[in-house]
Amino acid sequence: MQFDSLDDVRSFCRDLPAGDSSAADAAARRQQMLTKPPGSLGRLEELAVWLARWQGREIPQLERVTIAVFAGNHGVAARGVSAYPQAVTEQMVANFARGGAAINQIAGLAGADLLVVPIELARPTRDFTATAAMDADEFLSAVDIGYRTVPPDSDLLAVGEMGIANTTTAAMLCAALLGGGAGQWAGRGTGVDDAGLARKRAAIEAGLGRHRALSGDPLAIAAALGGRELAAIAGAVLAARANQIPVLIDGFVATSAIVPLTRLDAGMLDHCRAGHVSAESGHRALLRELGLNPLLDLDMRLGEASGAGVAILLLRAALACHAGMATFAEAGVSGADE
Amino acid sequence: MQFDSLDDVRSFCRDLPAGDSSAADAAARRQQMLTKPPGSLGRLEELAVWLARWQGREIPQLERVTIAVFAGNHGVAARGVSAYPQAVTEQMVANFARGGAAINQIAGLAGADLLVVPIELARPTRDFTATAAMDADEFLSAVDIGYRTVPPDSDLLAVGEMGIANTTTAAMLCAALLGGGAGQWAGRGTGVDDAGLARKRAAIEAGLGRHRALSGDPLAIAAALGGRELAAIAGAVLAARANQIPVLIDGFVATSAIVPLTRLDAGMLDHCRAGHVSAESGHRALLRELGLNPLLDLDMRLGEASGAGVAILLLRAALACHAGMATFAEAGVSGADE
Repeated sequence: MQFDSLDDVRSFCRDLPAGDSSAADAAARRQQMLTKPPGSLGRLEELAVWLARWQGREIPQLERVTIAVFAGNHGVAARGVSAYPQAVTEQMVANFARGGAAINQIAGLAGADLLVVPIELARPTRDFTATAAMDADEFLSAVDIGYRTVPPDSDLLAVGEMGIANTTTAAMLCAALLGGGAGQWAGRGTGVDDAGLARKRAAIEAGLGRHRALSGDPLAIAAALGGRELAAIAGAVLAARANQIPVLIDGFVATSAIVPLTRLDAGMLDHCRAGHVSAESGHRALLRELGLNPLLDLDMRLGEASGAGVAILLLRAALACHAGMATFAEAGVSGADE
Repeated sequence: MQFDSLDDVRSFCRDLPAGDSSAADAAARRQQMLTKPPGSLGRLEELAVWLARWQGREIPQLERVTIAVFAGNHGVAARGVSAYPQAVTEQMVANFARGGAAINQIAGLAGADLLVVPIELARPTRDFTATAAMDADEFLSAVDIGYRTVPPDSDLLAVGEMGIANTTTAAMLCAALLGGGAGQWAGRGTGVDDAGLARKRAAIEAGLGRHRALSGDPLAIAAALGGRELAAIAGAVLAARANQIPVLIDGFVATSAIVPLTRLDAGMLDHCRAGHVSAESGHRALLRELGLNPLLDLDMRLGEASGAGVAILLLRAALACHAGMATFAEAGVSGADE
């Protein structure tokens, strides 16, 4: 295993690999020379410099783009918190395998390899309202799966998830780690009705009471609340950091999965960008809390890395301009106020 | 010429072609059957239905995508309203021809044909602070160029512009047609300094005084204020409507070019979407005024159809999902609350 104990994870997070400032500086200088008013490509410029920093190249590349979608099942689903039966997690994994889901189409368009990793779907995590969803070994095992899923030569990683009831787990994690209570973080997920939303809030309040003793230990909280796919996302984000791979985070669930890591080191998200802000009600507040400015705001709330997948297209646009544009000198174009 | 008089334009706008409601309804029904919670792809769903409406096909296509960039020069440039010399308009047209500009890279990525149309660059429109920028014939000639630029078999049109000083003309048009004065609409364009911004505002105030008598006649105002590339954009948008081609509008200047048409018929923009909201200060207010919700908000302010060009990628994502996803029945996935 990549990490044999929670302390191993903590040690890694205390000494995170840094980006390549000289590559970032070179990329920023290049942007100033391209045939456009300085700054006029806005976030496309910033994205090119960010890719340069994490890839360690003045002109980054997007040849091997990996989309990783982790799937898991949740004991808390038994509390009636989702509009869909738990069987849908496995059915959707089969749909991914056959190429029928949204992320299959988006991955194809974005030129990305789609890796779908179901994690013990037949063995849901335990219901966190009654007990710990996972013990430390189960948690580390899921983190390890996520870590090992990321091809070390990826130029970019987009992470997402599938798991019936996992917006409940995500809201639970946010409430436990960031405060604010169930009301701030519980949304309608796939489209739960008012009664379902009330059950979701009640489950989160019960979980807060049950696991209060863990507050102050973010990794213990992540294990106690689940789910396996969220732990795997955390592992994938750590693998990306270890291998200098920039990361696009998907929606509310994927973002919540990284919150425990952010409590260990404030610079944890430097190699990450939020692909989009989801319509799921807690996501905008969560991104603000983490200081992430989403690339897209398209009212999407599907998960399965769909928002991050679409955001890959923006990185391709940023890179196309960064790599392909002529400089003022090459093009014989006058600069400002000449 | 497509339009022999301003009255011909007015007549066209009084009897605008409608979209295909049955194709739109069929597309909306298809969206409900795809393997995702209803509505969970957000604006990607709405975009697929919108494309269906204007192409008249349940499953739209994006085989022939046209980006049209019109270039013009402006007499008001002599008022010192830009950070760049007027020669840059022609230099950038040459850069487009050689493939060195941002829009070349974006068009290549988006699979679009780029049509660059310089319009009498050696003959700038007249300075609107002193006289009418164009007479009716000059205006109609530029509208005609725009109209004829659009291949009638295009599946999608993105419109943009290049023209030193044209954010001044754009702000002037907005002030004349929407009120609010120079302060509301004048921004820094390519990056003018405080003194330049003051000159820009003064030019707009002077233009408001000089052309006050035209208020109430949007096309006469469009002619009197210029520029040729803005008139061509209006012509291209009319050609798209005549040929049932959906349109992505670029930034502040391109949007302002369509404002005169919107004053003639409230449904003028039904076949249009705002590709992005620009960092140019007046654009957000202008989009709000027109009821347009931009697809992207990336702090871009380059023009040359760059924002609309990037938004083509979002339409490709919308279409990929709409056309390629499996239905619940095909995939054997359970629906909600089964």
